[in-house]
Amino acid sequence: MSATAKPSIGHLVIVGVGLIGGSFSLALKRAGLVGRVTGVGRSRDNLELAQRLGIVDAWTHDVGEAVRDADVVLLAVPMSAFESVFADMAASLSDHAVVTDAGSTKQSAIAAARKFLPNPSRFIAAHPIAGTEQSGAGAAFAELFEKRLCVLAPDPDSDPDALALVKALWHQVGSRVVCMGAAEHDDFLAAVSHLPHLAAFALVNAVRRQSYEGHDPFRFAAGGFRDFTRIASSSPEMWRDIALCNSDALVKQIDAFQAELSGLREALMAADGESIMNEFKAAKEAREKWLAEHGDGL
Amino acid sequence: MSATAKPSIGHLVIVGVGLIGGSFSLALKRAGLVGRVTGVGRSRDNLELAQRLGIVDAWTHDVGEAVRDADVVLLAVPMSAFESVFADMAASLSDHAVVTDAGSTKQSAIAAARKFLPNPSRFIAAHPIAGTEQSGAGAAFAELFEKRLCVLAPDPDSDPDALALVKALWHQVGSRVVCMGAAEHDDFLAAVSHLPHLAAFALVNAVRRQSYEGHDPFRFAAGGFRDFTRIASSSPEMWRDIALCNSDALVKQIDAFQAELSGLREALMAADGESIMNEFKAAKEAREKWLAEHGDGL
Repeated sequence: MSATAKPSIGHLVIVGVGLIGGSFSLALKRAGLVGRVTGVGRSRDNLELAQRLGIVDAWTHDVGEAVRDADVVLLAVPMSAFESVFADMAASLSDHAVVTDAGSTKQSAIAAARKFLPNPSRFIAAHPIAGTEQSGAGAAFAELFEKRLCVLAPDPDSDPDALALVKALWHQVGSRVVCMGAAEHDDFLAAVSHLPHLAAFALVNAVRRQSYEGHDPFRFAAGGFRDFTRIASSSPEMWRDIALCNSDALVKQIDAFQAELSGLREALMAADGESIMNEFKAAKEAREKWLAEHGDGL
Repeated sequence: MSATAKPSIGHLVIVGVGLIGGSFSLALKRAGLVGRVTGVGRSRDNLELAQRLGIVDAWTHDVGEAVRDADVVLLAVPMSAFESVFADMAASLSDHAVVTDAGSTKQSAIAAARKFLPNPSRFIAAHPIAGTEQSGAGAAFAELFEKRLCVLAPDPDSDPDALALVKALWHQVGSRVVCMGAAEHDDFLAAVSHLPHLAAFALVNAVRRQSYEGHDPFRFAAGGFRDFTRIASSSPEMWRDIALCNSDALVKQIDAFQAELSGLREALMAADGESIMNEFKAAKEAREKWLAEHGDGL
């Protein structure tokens, strides 16, 4: 199947009916590409809400039961749950079922699939680079993935039909699909996503730990601080999971970032205005080039 | 004069008719508190625009000429220009003139005033914590300072009348005025403003310096990266100046930030999910507490 052929799924199972899982279902339903959708999750309230909103046609807490006749299974749960979810579905998956995910780190997802799935070649690791601060089924909307990048990380063992189907599905929900190696993906995302999150948390903590007599330093923070630290209001659980799942790449990025900070510190100590200016200018230019080239998909 | 008394200025001189200087003039004119306003700057186009927009009534390139019969002079130029502007106005200032500024670092502003002004006790250092990405007279608007903090950094030598007048003026343009020591101000701002800017520039450079075969890492950046690095699109010149003028405090903040990053790096290497979770959670809580308490002034 080519990426432009319209796929059709009889039974889609969404494990984790939150913003990502729910939006995936809504987008495929809107496109008329799916027969029925079963949601799996822990929160009864969230699953009932998903059903009321037409995101899922049925739901259960039991992933093994849900996937029994599934054609496609999407994992949209926190990274820390991947192993147990794969383990729970392993015995019930049919031979033809295709499994994909929406996790932020791909090497760990593939490792978990290899460890627990009967046929890991039919697992195609995916990462839709999309999201909002909102979570839960109530936040889902069919347009979430439109124009957003979705990285697929197949490997040489991946089943070509499974890959073609997953590619077509993400294409149909509006994503711009890119294939690359899992390690490369994890390096990139460590740089442009995981590190910024970690740095935002770290910076808020640096301020928080400083006590000044009579004044709260946060009081003097303004719009720049608000935007810089916006991602420090993200889910601590989710980002702990991502950080742990991608710790090798993230540590490398922390080191690269610390080297930049140390370079600027040195220039400051030497009152080397020219170096500081060159660094700030290069950063501004790189950011503006990025926005000009890729800003429309944000 | 109390901070609530309405001040009245015969002749106001704005040195640097940009976003800050222009907005200060517009706000005082709107409140009917100023007789006439003279703008001083280097760009003829910007000064003519300021006159067309009613921000200034007259303009000149010559600061000495402009301040000759000034009642109040506001410096709203880059920090690197403070010494030369003070030097240029020193011989022409009348005894009763009050000088204030809008610079981001206060110890350096006070040091420059002490070095060049005939009567530094009539210089009252001020920092309105307000701004947008825009610059130039065309970006000025009378409401810029409304509800925003304005820090005054008087010292024991400050003339009480000059302090009362400057306090009243910033109050009248809508600011919430706070007085504190210059060193304390510089420490706070290093933490919540100067460090975030430096870190945003540094992070963009960390990404920029990484070359990956065939892929541009920026391509994978999304909304989190955009917001985190928004301030890396700020003026490199302005932030170089601020960094250099506040380098002692900023170096201390870089060290505090690096210690946080190193702590998280260590926790990652040890796969210590609990520590990472606690850190991320504390940061999220501190940020949300800050937004709840101070977010309305942003």
